[in-house]
Amino acid sequence: MNEHPLTSLLADHIEEQIERRRAAPISTPVLPQTIRDHLESSFDFRSPLSAESVFSGTTEMLWNWAEHATNPRHYGLTRPTVDRISIVADALTALYDPNLAMWEFAPGATEIERHVLRVLGRKFGFDIDEGFGNFTSGGAEANHTATIVALTAKFPNFAQGGVRQLEGAPTLYVSDEAHHSFDKVALAVGLGRDAIRRVPVGEDLKMDVKRLEALVHQDRSEGRIPFMVVATAGTTGAGVVDPLHSIARVAAECDLWMHVDGAWGGAAALSESLKPVLKGMDEADSLTVDAHKWLSSPVGAGMFYCRHRQPINQAFSTNAGYVPDLADDGRIYPMYTTMQWSRRCTGLKLFMMLAQHGLGGVVRRIEHQAEMGQRLRGELIRTGWSILNETTLPVICFTHHDLRNDAATHRSMVQWLKNNQLAWISSLQLRENQYALRASITNYESNPDDIDHLVSSLNDALKVELRATCAAASRADKADPATQISDEE
Amino acid sequence: MNEHPLTSLLADHIEEQIERRRAAPISTPVLPQTIRDHLESSFDFRSPLSAESVFSGTTEMLWNWAEHATNPRHYGLTRPTVDRISIVADALTALYDPNLAMWEFAPGATEIERHVLRVLGRKFGFDIDEGFGNFTSGGAEANHTATIVALTAKFPNFAQGGVRQLEGAPTLYVSDEAHHSFDKVALAVGLGRDAIRRVPVGEDLKMDVKRLEALVHQDRSEGRIPFMVVATAGTTGAGVVDPLHSIARVAAECDLWMHVDGAWGGAAALSESLKPVLKGMDEADSLTVDAHKWLSSPVGAGMFYCRHRQPINQAFSTNAGYVPDLADDGRIYPMYTTMQWSRRCTGLKLFMMLAQHGLGGVVRRIEHQAEMGQRLRGELIRTGWSILNETTLPVICFTHHDLRNDAATHRSMVQWLKNNQLAWISSLQLRENQYALRASITNYESNPDDIDHLVSSLNDALKVELRATCAAASRADKADPATQISDEE
Repeated sequence: MNEHPLTSLLADHIEEQIERRRAAPISTPVLPQTIRDHLESSFDFRSPLSAESVFSGTTEMLWNWAEHATNPRHYGLTRPTVDRISIVADALTALYDPNLAMWEFAPGATEIERHVLRVLGRKFGFDIDEGFGNFTSGGAEANHTATIVALTAKFPNFAQGGVRQLEGAPTLYVSDEAHHSFDKVALAVGLGRDAIRRVPVGEDLKMDVKRLEALVHQDRSEGRIPFMVVATAGTTGAGVVDPLHSIARVAAECDLWMHVDGAWGGAAALSESLKPVLKGMDEADSLTVDAHKWLSSPVGAGMFYCRHRQPINQAFSTNAGYVPDLADDGRIYPMYTTMQWSRRCTGLKLFMMLAQHGLGGVVRRIEHQAEMGQRLRGELIRTGWSILNETTLPVICFTHHDLRNDAATHRSMVQWLKNNQLAWISSLQLRENQYALRASITNYESNPDDIDHLVSSLNDALKVELRATCAAASRADKADPATQISDEE
Repeated sequence: MNEHPLTSLLADHIEEQIERRRAAPISTPVLPQTIRDHLESSFDFRSPLSAESVFSGTTEMLWNWAEHATNPRHYGLTRPTVDRISIVADALTALYDPNLAMWEFAPGATEIERHVLRVLGRKFGFDIDEGFGNFTSGGAEANHTATIVALTAKFPNFAQGGVRQLEGAPTLYVSDEAHHSFDKVALAVGLGRDAIRRVPVGEDLKMDVKRLEALVHQDRSEGRIPFMVVATAGTTGAGVVDPLHSIARVAAECDLWMHVDGAWGGAAALSESLKPVLKGMDEADSLTVDAHKWLSSPVGAGMFYCRHRQPINQAFSTNAGYVPDLADDGRIYPMYTTMQWSRRCTGLKLFMMLAQHGLGGVVRRIEHQAEMGQRLRGELIRTGWSILNETTLPVICFTHHDLRNDAATHRSMVQWLKNNQLAWISSLQLRENQYALRASITNYESNPDDIDHLVSSLNDALKVELRATCAAASRADKADPATQISDEE
């Protein structure tokens, strides 16, 4: 029997909190100064507080002052809910505190991560026995790692001499719709943001492969050195997948490292029905998939896969006198193959989830979310909305022909839904001059009722928005002498 | 009442495990294939398993197959034990799953991190209201961030044009005893490993500041561009602190960014009695401190501090159409100021620990560990051992004049202690030709009995080692004809 109050509180609280997710605030209007004042007055760290009061004070802040992506009516920017056993796993990770620098520190945790990476890798088309896989803090670190490894692979002296000794400027290609983490990556690897070529997308928002080819040839003729193309599998905005197979062909012809940023969409490879959208992913040199995006894992749980082993070793090897000797019986030494050094175990939450539900159970959740996406599309169309993106992944960009095609109007719709705690969706600009609302279904608890509720809330928001527009127009009418004259005619 | 079996299991298990830490294996002789076979046969993810069996199967692996740094007789490479409330905090982090990309996603968690960084920053000599502080995955990311920010600050066009457009090769200085994460950093920022100058250390293992100055001038005269010096506050090997104040003077004179890698030792600034060793730390431009090294936080909990705000914004700003608008009422948007993008909340475990124990309670733990270090030194000297390093931090490098001064002998001592589950210590090479044993006390549960037990175990190990040496010598005597002749004389 557990007699300690703090851990009992934790166990009860996890259950209560999972139970009340549907009631969790979708939006919170708090101001920074309110929270700062509260923290300074209640938690100055001068005198010790009871564990119980720290617990209740902390959970209150976490509950009140957050937009809860665990609420099934939160359709925001690819943040899933989290599974009970993955929460338990993160607690065990903290309890045992395995350090994933050296194999000997934590053989169990290290091998558990390898096992997960190996099983999922096979589904993604990456065999880690031949190549490599590791967990990262998130997609940004995984994409960063890919770029370092690509530079190491393509430029023999990169590890030693850096980018200065190269004969031209290394250049990498992403689509206009790619994630902006590559802005940071290009800077962080010393290439500078100028090294990024954003390849235009077609009407379908996918990378225009002909333009990619043309840009590479042009850059090469001007003395730059194209070395990498990043294809996105599930763009953040519209959830489209670049033409992976065609990009792989260009990469092979032009000697580019092909990286797939499947931070979100890559997980579709686990499902036989969704998988066709990723055709060509298994031809890439490296891959990013985030378990915290579509596999219901708490952040951060990035995965990086690479088909080649040699540049990994070359990039991250080092030699420190205080480090114990290495054995060569197949042990894994993450500190010699990853950007991090001492590292927490990230894979345990995925391991326990896969073990409990089976891969089949996890896949059914993804497929359920894709179905909910289809339902949302259908209901929107049925009630007069227009869908603006085409994808089998559950992200829906849409608008209504009664709405003004501008940023302010779409933002105002979003704000009304949030203010009334009805749903968390976002707005964005698609293509040149198209504004849209955006809902992504990445919470496995979102059910048909939630979807129908979203659609009816949207229709309510539309009415409110249109009434406001009419009222404004009528006020303008009365104030405008020209209109008054015309009224008098 | 909590009726759910899994979270009840968790609560009970946390208590049991904290209770039995002293019995946890310090060493495990398992082979990779053993674990792999077990994982493949027991966890193939094909059929779902009960949550309970996943829980017991996982905790068994974590218990059996690890070197437990939570055991107070583990004196290894700066790995602390973890506090109960920090485990609870990591579970809450997973449960609420705040995403620290945008302030609006998680106002509470974002402000909690800021509050911790602000309070600790004042002790470290860094005011985050003027400058900047953030949590990182660990010291490697913090050091990496420092280097990116230094490059951005020193070279106006770095963010846009990278290192290729500079007129000379940027060069950074670390001591021969500095952490090897800078090897990876130099490669990862596109400078290449050649950009690192390792400044020799004196007899005291501290950076020789005169040599630093000479190297900077020499490099500059040869067309390189010295831009950064990294001073270590608590080297991984011998726990020494570079002469921070003198290095700050050189940095100012030679226009270098000064970074202090206080991943471990930086925490000493929290204690009035230990603080003097860090004199000059508050003159640095940036600082790394790892809460998972000396503040009993589970890995990873790195902290990065910077005195300047402008290069942070320049380095990590980006612009993505799918991102909601930013408010300017003092909100913090970590995705625009850090290497990561979506990020887990790292500071909660430190917040709850500081709230429960108070800063004073946390400081008393550090001071206790420093006292245990002194006790170990005293007991070793009393029983005939020699101390080889000088530091007020609790890391002790030592040897015995009866031991052969070679790597194999010191390794064999370490192995005997591990094989007999007596203590986890390591061996290393110090200076040119000095081999040593190394024990660091970073577990707040290590008590005087543990220290005395370590010393008596070391004396046992010494006897065993000397007996083995004598036996080998006597066997060699018998086998060696020359000796046999000499015996016959």
